[in-house]
Amino acid sequence: MHEDRVFDPEPSVRRLARTIYERTIALPIVSPHGHVDPRLLADDAPFPEPTTLFILPDHYVLRMLYSQGLSFESLGVEPKGSVPDREAGLIPSAATVERDARRIWQLFADHYFLFRGTPTAAWLDYQFDEIFGIRQVLESGSALRIYDEIAEKLTTPEFRPRALFDRFRIEVLATTDAASDPLEHHARIRTSGWTGRVIPTFRPDAVLQILAPAWEDEIARLETVGGRRLTTLGAFIDALAARRAHFKSLGATATDHGVETPYTTSLPADEAEAIFQRARQGTATPDDQRRFQGHMLMVMAGQSIEDGLVMQLHAGSLRNHNQFVFDRFGPDRGADIPIAAEYTRNLRPLLNAFGNDIRFRLLLFTLDESTYSRELAPLAGHYPAVRLGPAWWFYDSIEGMTRYRDRITETAGIYNTSGFNDDTRAFCSIPARHDLSRRVDANWLARLVARHIVSLESAHEMARALAYDLAKDAYRL
Amino acid sequence: MHEDRVFDPEPSVRRLARTIYERTIALPIVSPHGHVDPRLLADDAPFPEPTTLFILPDHYVLRMLYSQGLSFESLGVEPKGSVPDREAGLIPSAATVERDARRIWQLFADHYFLFRGTPTAAWLDYQFDEIFGIRQVLESGSALRIYDEIAEKLTTPEFRPRALFDRFRIEVLATTDAASDPLEHHARIRTSGWTGRVIPTFRPDAVLQILAPAWEDEIARLETVGGRRLTTLGAFIDALAARRAHFKSLGATATDHGVETPYTTSLPADEAEAIFQRARQGTATPDDQRRFQGHMLMVMAGQSIEDGLVMQLHAGSLRNHNQFVFDRFGPDRGADIPIAAEYTRNLRPLLNAFGNDIRFRLLLFTLDESTYSRELAPLAGHYPAVRLGPAWWFYDSIEGMTRYRDRITETAGIYNTSGFNDDTRAFCSIPARHDLSRRVDANWLARLVARHIVSLESAHEMARALAYDLAKDAYRL
Amino acid sequence: MHEDRVFDPEPSVRRLARTIYERTIALPIVSPHGHVDPRLLADDAPFPEPTTLFILPDHYVLRMLYSQGLSFESLGVEPKGSVPDREAGLIPSAATVERDARRIWQLFADHYFLFRGTPTAAWLDYQFDEIFGIRQVLESGSALRIYDEIAEKLTTPEFRPRALFDRFRIEVLATTDAASDPLEHHARIRTSGWTGRVIPTFRPDAVLQILAPAWEDEIARLETVGGRRLTTLGAFIDALAARRAHFKSLGATATDHGVETPYTTSLPADEAEAIFQRARQGTATPDDQRRFQGHMLMVMAGQSIEDGLVMQLHAGSLRNHNQFVFDRFGPDRGADIPIAAEYTRNLRPLLNAFGNDIRFRLLLFTLDESTYSRELAPLAGHYPAVRLGPAWWFYDSIEGMTRYRDRITETAGIYNTSGFNDDTRAFCSIPARHDLSRRVDANWLARLVARHIVSLESAHEMARALAYDLAKDAYRL
Repeated sequence: MHEDRVFDPEPSVRRLARTIYERTIALPIVSPHGHVDPRLLADDAPFPEPTTLFILPDHYVLRMLYSQGLSFESLGVEPKGSVPDREAGLIPSAATVERDARRIWQLFADHYFLFRGTPTAAWLDYQFDEIFGIRQVLESGSALRIYDEIAEKLTTPEFRPRALFDRFRIEVLATTDAASDPLEHHARIRTSGWTGRVIPTFRPDAVLQILAPAWEDEIARLETVGGRRLTTLGAFIDALAARRAHFKSLGATATDHGVETPYTTSLPADEAEAIFQRARQGTATPDDQRRFQGHMLMVMAGQSIEDGLVMQLHAGSLRNHNQFVFDRFGPDRGADIPIAAEYTRNLRPLLNAFGNDIRFRLLLFTLDESTYSRELAPLAGHYPAVRLGPAWWFYDSIEGMTRYRDRITETAGIYNTSGFNDDTRAFCSIPARHDLSRRVDANWLARLVARHIVSLESAHEMARALAYDLAKDAYRL
Repeated sequence: MHEDRVFDPEPSVRRLARTIYERTIALPIVSPHGHVDPRLLADDAPFPEPTTLFILPDHYVLRMLYSQGLSFESLGVEPKGSVPDREAGLIPSAATVERDARRIWQLFADHYFLFRGTPTAAWLDYQFDEIFGIRQVLESGSALRIYDEIAEKLTTPEFRPRALFDRFRIEVLATTDAASDPLEHHARIRTSGWTGRVIPTFRPDAVLQILAPAWEDEIARLETVGGRRLTTLGAFIDALAARRAHFKSLGATATDHGVETPYTTSLPADEAEAIFQRARQGTATPDDQRRFQGHMLMVMAGQSIEDGLVMQLHAGSLRNHNQFVFDRFGPDRGADIPIAAEYTRNLRPLLNAFGNDIRFRLLLFTLDESTYSRELAPLAGHYPAVRLGPAWWFYDSIEGMTRYRDRITETAGIYNTSGFNDDTRAFCSIPARHDLSRRVDANWLARLVARHIVSLESAHEMARALAYDLAKDAYRL
Repeated sequence: MHEDRVFDPEPSVRRLARTIYERTIALPIVSPHGHVDPRLLADDAPFPEPTTLFILPDHYVLRMLYSQGLSFESLGVEPKGSVPDREAGLIPSAATVERDARRIWQLFADHYFLFRGTPTAAWLDYQFDEIFGIRQVLESGSALRIYDEIAEKLTTPEFRPRALFDRFRIEVLATTDAASDPLEHHARIRTSGWTGRVIPTFRPDAVLQILAPAWEDEIARLETVGGRRLTTLGAFIDALAARRAHFKSLGATATDHGVETPYTTSLPADEAEAIFQRARQGTATPDDQRRFQGHMLMVMAGQSIEDGLVMQLHAGSLRNHNQFVFDRFGPDRGADIPIAAEYTRNLRPLLNAFGNDIRFRLLLFTLDESTYSRELAPLAGHYPAVRLGPAWWFYDSIEGMTRYRDRITETAGIYNTSGFNDDTRAFCSIPARHDLSRRVDANWLARLVARHIVSLESAHEMARALAYDLAKDAYRL
């Protein structure tokens, strides 16, 4: 890896980018939103081997390989069970699931060229090089040598999760946890004597999807963890408040909400209760679902004002677009596809109710870049409660992050944004992602300095804000 | 300020940008669309002091400070009256309105860093430096020194509005005026002996919003100014034509229309009349409003063909999104938020009726950048009547204007666009905005020359067109 | 023309771009989608003269000139017949159609500056210089000299269509042909002894537009060419299959489908049949049209799985937006205007049915750039059947193609895209367009190399893929 990677080739910009970046290297990592399994740091067990570490949990990797005709089975992904193959041989599929990790790794290396120009390659190359000290390019010929080298290192104490956590200089790591999660791993971390700061995030999506087949189970789980039957909407809302308090007692500073559409509305109490009752009887309609979700976003914003938890809203993903993949392999296999989003009208009820309240903080995320300059920056540049989450998911990339800055800053400035989220379940990719983000921001700032739009001194302050301060401030860490 | 600010740092591009820009410096300013109060130039009274000049009238400044939790009251904005605070202390608010202009200025300077990377900073820095000769950076420590220096200059004759008008080399300045405005300030300017060319623009929005509470008052005002009761749609349309003639007699060359959606339709005469009658009786519906507006756009396009006034259409802003701010402080406080726009289908009736008529000229503006390349450039690149207004509002910025050129030129060329609008009520920002626009265009052209896409000779011609000729031509000035 | 045109002016990027581009120059042209008239290569007659070659068939040229007030008549476009002028003199119009090719050429040259910064200028300059050896700039003074020089060359054997086909090094050229086209020109080419590979593409749009006035005629034509009455939907679908087989026998590897909205749905057999019957009786509704089209896309995807023809889907153009121009001059006069597109939900039924089937290949095109990163790259980066067509139509330009790569690659990589399409009916522009595309891609890759995102070695492989391999692979050529 070149030390000036990502930076603009124009020499004056590159020099500035390097200067600005260098001052951010020593800053600790603040990771306020992600999907690392807390068990990892509770157990602190060694990672098994490279394929389990790099390929199987990474839907970016799996989706690309699948898109080019490799079956999930050949990559070691177990089908959920009895779902029949459609027509064998036509769908990328294999009679048997590959269980030889080294053969999967070889297959991955054979197709590593597919990732050229993608952030996946940038993150993986960083991990191989910076974390595991691999000095070769991953390709067919080097695959197994690299596999063995990583595998060997994974057996050493320096590569245990907590040791890496320290080596990565993570100041705080937030996980994402279901409302009904008992958070036992977080509790174990807290009582373990280890001083790493790992905190949960309250994500109640599952208990709000009243049409989902699993909803009754989710409610049952919430009843169990709360020790109380939830026969009324009031009881349900109280249960959420109680769970929020429990999350907060284990360090949580934020909630997270994933919705297809950021629709908000304030229903009359009896109407909301009636929807909840229909949901419990299994007779709710899609319109009930939509209105219930819109209403509950308002309720939970009110709860945020009470308990101070920052509210994150991730809108615009149509989950599990591919029914076959979902039926056969379950969720999170790369088949979540964005849709166009609308924030101006949808969020108006919520912002009219709470947007001027400085106790409230709402972080907005989007998968629809056309809303950056059209809706999100204007909203964040006006409402005191609103900050913008960083470039999300498919946009967590060199061009994606650059477009984010270019389209948002001129209207909202950088101080209505909230630093960087790695948003990953791939633990070792955390420093890779933060490093890429810091490089992109340093380069973006260098271009401002080189064009005499901001001074170098301002750029240094802005770089520190983007890499560290804004995330802490936005998430009240 | 650096003399090469905004220009690409690559030396060959920068050299070209400077060369191209330099030839545009001496060109007069043509300001065909803006919001300067004509009383300013009718009275020619001195500006009171810096806070009144720079902060209070600038919704870009107010919105950013408010978004970071500063109350409007602390910035000296008077509430409209009896609206109660919601919960004191929670909404950015203060018991009393700050009336010490120096303390407001200090607060502004303390937060001036928020504007880093925004056009507001670029415009203000230009004004401080170029117009007021301030050589210090505005920050907490320098705030009051700068305040005093500007305040002193404002008392001198050189800083009176007409003197600045001449110093700015404004060839023509168009204001924006309600249909029922008697235009007395414009008349006073004309009869004052001063030779500055200040012309009105006919903006009938208020008399077309039949659902707005103020509509009856607006109609009454139109009846008063026209001296005739408006009991039929025909009389109303005639009154508009009469007002247009009056505007034209005072130099107007254009009309301006602000709509949420650029919907157009041609209603049967009796249906249009029926809507007008319902409106007068206070029984119009939202659908009536929509259809009436769509119909009246067609009617007014027809009037444009008759009287030759260029028709501007500003679409896509949801006005007064923040009910609390609107109730407490009134309109234009930075809470207008864009929505997605659709032009292809909405404008089809109007363009099928008038789009091929070379007497008609329609200037389209958008707040939805995704329509630049998808709809607006294709429309402007086909219909003889259509030209595109410049990058509007949130996009009147370095990156915003660059994206505008990049996305529109390849389909529509530059000759279907209409130069630059400063669109401002902040008088002293006019030269700042034109200078920024000329720099951005020069740099954009320099990049074309450096890549051998256009010749330097062509670029010089294009730069002049963008800075001067196209605005005059598009607005028939 | 400068040898480094299009390339970034930064010296290190330019050097890399040149290096990368140079290795692609010798690659043959694969033209898998376009609109050249096959009769051209069947007859191999000389081109008549420059105006007929460059102006009349090029809707990019005509639209720009029309948008600036030149009438179609003055450009030599014949009205279809009896359509009356609206108000003479108001619409760009002329009493008589100009028939002097040299005068039309002069008018074109007088307005050639309008094309500054557009791809039209880049393509034309290439053709004048590279193909016809013209070393002057086209402008008023040089117009007729250039006309004569080109006219003379067109009379020589070297400038006959087949000679140019060879000189352009076209490996394969696909035309676009109606379902009912007897393909006699393709048959003549095959039996002529000439070895150029010219293949048809099956485009059944006309027989699927059940509401179009011409539909009955189209069906009649399909009955004639198939020799069978089409009284049932089953018979109609069989007839399509038979035509596909015929197209395939003449070398076709693909079908093409133009739709306003990429809506797909699977109707029950009796419902689909009922719509077909209503269509035949002339009583179909707009909703019937929509559902029929959505259903038939599914049917034809199924046919693609059977016969292996690659399915192209061009969505999002509202055809013949300008009724006056359509009535007077017919289709394809530059009045097709894009609309916003939605792929995620619309394509879900089709992709759930066939998207995991590796026998199926679906190439998606868009006129709505906001879908590149939001919908198309995520779909192509997941579904094995999906590849993305190149930047289409208004986006087949330097900035347009660059945005395409920047927004798609980070999510889908380059290997889920399909190289370049020239998509032109202007035969001599084919090498111009491929050259421009190769330059843009080389420059885009050079920027990746210079920023150390991909290696130079990888960039060379990617450049070859983009210029040659991917088109062959995507279209199964």
